[in-house]
Amino acid sequence: MTNGADILSRTLADHGVDTCFANPGTTEMHLLSALGREPRITLHLCLFEGVVTGAADGFARMKGRPAATLLHLGPGLANGMANLHNAKKAASPLINIVGEHATYHLNVDAPLTADIAGMARTVSDYVVTPNSADTIAADTVGMMAAITGPEQRVATMIVPNDVAWTETNTTAAAIAPMPAPEPNADTLPRAVTALKGGNSAALMIGAPFITARMAKLAQAIGAATGCRVFTEPTVARMSRGSGVPALQRQPFHVDFATEALKGLSDAVLVGARTPVAFFAYPNRPSLLLPDDATVIELAPPLADMEKALETLAESLGAQVTSEPTPTPDNTDFDGTAPITSETLGSAVANALPEGAIVVDESITNGLHMFAKCATAAPHDWLNNRGGSIGYSMPVAVGASVACPDRPVLCVTGDGSAAYTLQALWTMARSKLNVTVVILANRSYRILANEMSKIGAGEPTDATLPLMSLEDPAPDWVKLAEGHGVSAERVTNAGSLSLAIARAMSKPGPTLIEAVM
Amino acid sequence: MTNGADILSRTLADHGVDTCFANPGTTEMHLLSALGREPRITLHLCLFEGVVTGAADGFARMKGRPAATLLHLGPGLANGMANLHNAKKAASPLINIVGEHATYHLNVDAPLTADIAGMARTVSDYVVTPNSADTIAADTVGMMAAITGPEQRVATMIVPNDVAWTETNTTAAAIAPMPAPEPNADTLPRAVTALKGGNSAALMIGAPFITARMAKLAQAIGAATGCRVFTEPTVARMSRGSGVPALQRQPFHVDFATEALKGLSDAVLVGARTPVAFFAYPNRPSLLLPDDATVIELAPPLADMEKALETLAESLGAQVTSEPTPTPDNTDFDGTAPITSETLGSAVANALPEGAIVVDESITNGLHMFAKCATAAPHDWLNNRGGSIGYSMPVAVGASVACPDRPVLCVTGDGSAAYTLQALWTMARSKLNVTVVILANRSYRILANEMSKIGAGEPTDATLPLMSLEDPAPDWVKLAEGHGVSAERVTNAGSLSLAIARAMSKPGPTLIEAVM
Repeated sequence: MTNGADILSRTLADHGVDTCFANPGTTEMHLLSALGREPRITLHLCLFEGVVTGAADGFARMKGRPAATLLHLGPGLANGMANLHNAKKAASPLINIVGEHATYHLNVDAPLTADIAGMARTVSDYVVTPNSADTIAADTVGMMAAITGPEQRVATMIVPNDVAWTETNTTAAAIAPMPAPEPNADTLPRAVTALKGGNSAALMIGAPFITARMAKLAQAIGAATGCRVFTEPTVARMSRGSGVPALQRQPFHVDFATEALKGLSDAVLVGARTPVAFFAYPNRPSLLLPDDATVIELAPPLADMEKALETLAESLGAQVTSEPTPTPDNTDFDGTAPITSETLGSAVANALPEGAIVVDESITNGLHMFAKCATAAPHDWLNNRGGSIGYSMPVAVGASVACPDRPVLCVTGDGSAAYTLQALWTMARSKLNVTVVILANRSYRILANEMSKIGAGEPTDATLPLMSLEDPAPDWVKLAEGHGVSAERVTNAGSLSLAIARAMSKPGPTLIEAVM
Repeated sequence: MTNGADILSRTLADHGVDTCFANPGTTEMHLLSALGREPRITLHLCLFEGVVTGAADGFARMKGRPAATLLHLGPGLANGMANLHNAKKAASPLINIVGEHATYHLNVDAPLTADIAGMARTVSDYVVTPNSADTIAADTVGMMAAITGPEQRVATMIVPNDVAWTETNTTAAAIAPMPAPEPNADTLPRAVTALKGGNSAALMIGAPFITARMAKLAQAIGAATGCRVFTEPTVARMSRGSGVPALQRQPFHVDFATEALKGLSDAVLVGARTPVAFFAYPNRPSLLLPDDATVIELAPPLADMEKALETLAESLGAQVTSEPTPTPDNTDFDGTAPITSETLGSAVANALPEGAIVVDESITNGLHMFAKCATAAPHDWLNNRGGSIGYSMPVAVGASVACPDRPVLCVTGDGSAAYTLQALWTMARSKLNVTVVILANRSYRILANEMSKIGAGEPTDATLPLMSLEDPAPDWVKLAEGHGVSAERVTNAGSLSLAIARAMSKPGPTLIEAVM
């Protein structure tokens, strides 16, 4: 028996898809059976679709190639959309397989009938609905071609149930991934001239990945020319730590960002986009560069950025030198100190093992942690480019599935963690070496800051409870244990650091509630 | 200071909106401030947007009028979409207020920029984006008019941040709700003739509400004519229990449904839709009535169904009689028996206090419970018409906020509960008298049934784990306590019944893990 579902599974596997995060229902039973019959694909169950899609994002960030998701009809896709939004903004390749009612059943408007394509278009670069088992092979090949192209990364295939269950002999040959788009050779001379201007120019590098080599090249260019060097405020994956130059992030806050970019006459973009404010604030700009600054795009976001930087460095005569590795400065670390934004930084940096993957959703508490970890053991750092919270625990699941031999550290605010806490269960089920640190400040702290900053006044008796997670404060130890993950609560910086080191050195997941 | 956000809040309150379930972010800070300044509106924080929207659905089911939601941009709406799908299918009036970037900020494609209107259209009957503070009053009045009309119930207003923060003096007078659409007087003679045909005709009554009076009228019509009487398989809210005739539900499963409807020559629809299969199955029909049956629509889904049934009963000379109240039959109840689908029924029916609200997401375990509760104390029964799981705990939140003096019982499968478990926190925060019974069979049991039924074979070693919630089994006592809800675990029918009765008689929420 070979049906449409088998052809889909086989074609995905032919293109190197070996992992599927899934939360199926009745309309996906043929798809599930077929995926189960395909020995090259491993299935991971998640108890909520936001975990499914976030895990696929995390997998893609670490592997640079797509995992599949398996989602139940429109509502299943809807539950996964917030993390698909993040994946799309991170340019993470990803294939959603969404079951649909049988074609002939759609016109009876059954309870679960919904506009799946309409939903999918809002969070996908590419949407396709095979209309027969005989076309699903070609449709799958077309989808794989699209998401290795110059622009599209998130694909959604909507599979009517009768397309999945109908038998067919049609196959289609796998296609090779397309090469990355080329850097813009014609803007190179302008970029070279601009950067020679020194401090009035900036080199801005961005998504999706910043490798150690890229960081070294960027630093060398900065050293050779005196230009400013920034990464985008969030980067999907970034090599960091000892031996990797600590590039400056463009600040997140609009006021700090405009200050950092003040006086620039030229901005050279390598993978980066023109800097914009995260939100609009009254009497603050949306575009952050000075009005008269010239933007020079050397490489579009999905180009081979390492190549672009090599060429640029060569043109500028910038040499990568191996600098002395800075030693972590722990002279100010007091283990008995309470856990604050400041002490968190040292606590994490001291504990981080070589090869760790850090998934950062620390929101208001992340500034010092990011800075301190610049001198920690070499590691990868993952940030949210889409701004939809609840991204980090699911992404940690996917990163760990992608790299089972590397410990993953997920540092998340408690408010953020509550959106997708079901990720904990998959960490337990799939025995993932993920350490989750919950920064338990028991509030949406960023909102209290943002309310006055955006001109909406100060919190009142009526609105303050809407930013508070007290009354009752979630007990994260119980929430973790309830999902099968061992957990502990710590209240000072030293205990936190020891707990992180201990958890990351042993297999399986651990949650640490860091009370702030 | 009166800005667009104030005008919106005031206009909503002028139309009787007194409750807002919220999960706001930066772009909603002016909206939150304004809602906080409007003394007629009470705010309830939920930690996940699927709880926000489900709660608004539950509120609407009990009150028959809308609550507002407050959601953060596209991803916030996306997280709420699955339960908006359910609300839309239940025809629950509901107003989503979704913050949007300032109008001038949209073209810079900030991280959180998304196609909010595109998302909203998939789960809303009505979508509006005020383009200035001067039009938001009129836009709000227009929205309120739309959702009290003959067809539309779920509205989404997308509020650009500058529309919220800009000052204005524009107001708009509140409008009165529109009357419900009239029954189809012209089909009444045909309906009368058809029903007089007795057993070859069926009276089918449906969404959104079936009151005790409607149940009595339907039963009287059945008794007078010999016709079959069915409710739709799921009804948004239904009066049940002692003194209310137990109407037969059209069976959920396609085979039982076609059997129940076999031989019909006429189906008279009062609020109901033409019966359709929940899913398509190979070699099974999508439309469930016999091919040659005539469908007679006496009243469209949102018409005054009680009036339609009164007229119909009068035309048929059917008299509502007060029948002897059946006594619950507990002779077969053995408290020491394990918790099964069968014993669950008696355990719940025995414990149910008068005036209870039951939110049913028992999936594979609900059949006997529904039947047994027909003779329990009078209560309301809420069912999911949209089929998207994770509906019940959020709906229970909203039902309890709507009816604080009535105990709410939420009976849910463990798989379903995992989608929106954050609802537990709002139960604790808002001190709601909700009793949650988790039917812990530690599986998506329905899928194992459905897989073979739909022709996808039997579960294999590769696919069975995708239907299992073992390894690890969620610990619902800890998950509840982690959210601030007291909890206990029971393993036999008697303990379950006692625990339900105890929990419902005291204020505040309780979770009972019923191990099956």
